[in-house]
Amino acid sequence: MLRLLQENKALIETRSGRSLQVTAVSARDPKKARDLPLDGVRWVDSAEALAEDDAVDVVVELIGGEAGVALTLVENSLKAGKPVVTANKALVAHHGAKLDAMADTAGVTLSYEAAVAGGIPIIKLLREGLAANSVTRVYGILNGTCNYILTAMRETGNDFESVLKEAQGLGYAEADPTFDINGIDAAHKLAILASLAFGSRIDFPALAIEGIRHVSALDIAFADTLGYRIKLLGYAERQGDRLDQRVFPCMVAKAAPIASVEGVFNAVVAEGNQVGTVMIEGPGAGAGPTASAVVADLIDLARGARLATFGLGARDLVHLQPLDPGRRRGAFYLRLTVVDRPGVIADVSAILRDQVISMESMLQRGRAPEETVQVVLTTHETESAALSRAVAKIATLDCMIEPPRILPIAEF
Amino acid sequence: MLRLLQENKALIETRSGRSLQVTAVSARDPKKARDLPLDGVRWVDSAEALAEDDAVDVVVELIGGEAGVALTLVENSLKAGKPVVTANKALVAHHGAKLDAMADTAGVTLSYEAAVAGGIPIIKLLREGLAANSVTRVYGILNGTCNYILTAMRETGNDFESVLKEAQGLGYAEADPTFDINGIDAAHKLAILASLAFGSRIDFPALAIEGIRHVSALDIAFADTLGYRIKLLGYAERQGDRLDQRVFPCMVAKAAPIASVEGVFNAVVAEGNQVGTVMIEGPGAGAGPTASAVVADLIDLARGARLATFGLGARDLVHLQPLDPGRRRGAFYLRLTVVDRPGVIADVSAILRDQVISMESMLQRGRAPEETVQVVLTTHETESAALSRAVAKIATLDCMIEPPRILPIAEF
Repeated sequence: MLRLLQENKALIETRSGRSLQVTAVSARDPKKARDLPLDGVRWVDSAEALAEDDAVDVVVELIGGEAGVALTLVENSLKAGKPVVTANKALVAHHGAKLDAMADTAGVTLSYEAAVAGGIPIIKLLREGLAANSVTRVYGILNGTCNYILTAMRETGNDFESVLKEAQGLGYAEADPTFDINGIDAAHKLAILASLAFGSRIDFPALAIEGIRHVSALDIAFADTLGYRIKLLGYAERQGDRLDQRVFPCMVAKAAPIASVEGVFNAVVAEGNQVGTVMIEGPGAGAGPTASAVVADLIDLARGARLATFGLGARDLVHLQPLDPGRRRGAFYLRLTVVDRPGVIADVSAILRDQVISMESMLQRGRAPEETVQVVLTTHETESAALSRAVAKIATLDCMIEPPRILPIAEF
Repeated sequence: MLRLLQENKALIETRSGRSLQVTAVSARDPKKARDLPLDGVRWVDSAEALAEDDAVDVVVELIGGEAGVALTLVENSLKAGKPVVTANKALVAHHGAKLDAMADTAGVTLSYEAAVAGGIPIIKLLREGLAANSVTRVYGILNGTCNYILTAMRETGNDFESVLKEAQGLGYAEADPTFDINGIDAAHKLAILASLAFGSRIDFPALAIEGIRHVSALDIAFADTLGYRIKLLGYAERQGDRLDQRVFPCMVAKAAPIASVEGVFNAVVAEGNQVGTVMIEGPGAGAGPTASAVVADLIDLARGARLATFGLGARDLVHLQPLDPGRRRGAFYLRLTVVDRPGVIADVSAILRDQVISMESMLQRGRAPEETVQVVLTTHETESAALSRAVAKIATLDCMIEPPRILPIAEF
């Protein structure tokens, strides 16, 4: 961000209508070598002190983490009446409601464009660009690491573990990739998007989260055959006074625009009752995109913008109860690892029929009597609860070698 | 727009933090039957009178046309210190510089989100979301009618005229489609995007404009074979103190995200020096999307936003000279209708070689000695002027039956 402020200084000042000055900086280790334009910038030992610093008009928090110094700094800055710009998705996802109330009381803006989807201005799109719409759904590819891994698995046919190692080598996955591949990072972002889209109090603990660790090369190959791509989606839909918000790997039809979003790119789709469907796609991470978003927030502040954190006054946010997971409706993909013997399909079909689930397609590649084969089924739309009951029964069949694999099929 | 304001009234007022009241309306024929919520709204005979109306805080201009009532109303409203929201691309493209200066003097905002790409908030994206970036290129599919026609031509194999008729029947093309298919509508929008992206004084007369009337079913089929789609692009690129801005049909690699934007959808790609490439896609026209954009502008005003028309103060806009068309660089597609006889390819190759143009591929479908055949060539990157010289020579060859068809190949 410091580099961007220097590189595009003239342009930023003309667009802001004023000069932006970096007056003070703090970091855990001030001695660490940094290739940054820090001449004449005052170093502060304790980041929290910036909140009380009279020379500071706006605090930019790029520390990360949902607690500790980041939280104290942001809280104290808002209390002191200073606007805050942050790139910290965990902080906003976990403490958004409280921080919003503090910003509201102090009459200052809490900006967080860089917290979701990197350089893509999706916060501005939802909070301002689509403000005239009642949003019905918002979903997207919110984690570049997972999308890179799924893309590489499809392109190479390799399995998850080997592709993850390669991604780590290339710098597309962290040494400890847990937050990314378990879906937590995407979930932080989705919680923020859902609150913005539906004007609801942010409710991170209500999210259902599943990562990509169990997506196999087999599933990816079958998806391709059936006309789908597997994507890790963040998905939020309002159903009356209920909110369905979750992160999960799922099948997306190849023709859907979001299916073509590959590699480390992110994309978000918003459906509004007036505008229809809008998709925005771009780099979801990296120093340049993040700085682009942070500085856009600073320019907005310099231009005099003053916006409610989630687009509504803190008191106007509604509380939406989570949708009962069993009530979700949709089509599903089932992969069964079974012993190839007569009657298997008949047994499975009967179980589905008993749960009033209608099959859309069935695929068995090759024949191998009394050996292990893969049988893949897709269903028409059904209720999650019915599918779960059917799968529990299918799992008990004699011929089953492994637990059934289930992936939802998205309908866009 | 009136319908949207009524349908989403509660939501819009909560997001605006205030009530939005339609106080007065004017239209050419007040007696025309309208299925609109107009109870209690005052009718004004002359639209221009709204500019002087004390009960009017903001003027919304949805008349259209670059002159006449629309221009007078917008000018008088800005002079009277009233912010203006307009959906009128022709007005902004032709008079943007003058109107910007007037808004600047009066200290009010001229908003025009609905003027470009319908419901896609591309004005906000460029003016605010990417404000920290020096933009290098901005381009897009800006006319839904043309994109629908090109998509339908590819899907059906039918020629331009018959697909146009069908599009008119479906309401995707107007009875007089000139402005759309000749590229004028896209050019209005591109001029606005270029000014926003590069902070340059809007210069509509400088645009080079070519429509889709001459795109043939043959070209579309060859494009497909060669791995391309034909799209009508609005394209603007800054090269030093020169601006290359134009609207033209061109070949886009199928793998480019913009190639998958089909039918009446619009999309805009912006490349920034910090963020990289961002694409936004959505419905480019229609009552709902247009109203969504107009009301988003109204909500911004209600929230207290005050922005320079093109993102910079009127005096800070630079003047960029148009790039000499001969200096454009790029690859090209050439389709030659020739008599099939030995030596044709040798003659053409020699002419290209003399202009230092390197061939990338050559394709002749079938053989028919002394009959008419199609020969298709693609070149590597070259300067436009060299290609024009080569094509002029090729056109004089004895074997040529029709003038050569040329289409640029976009590099994204």
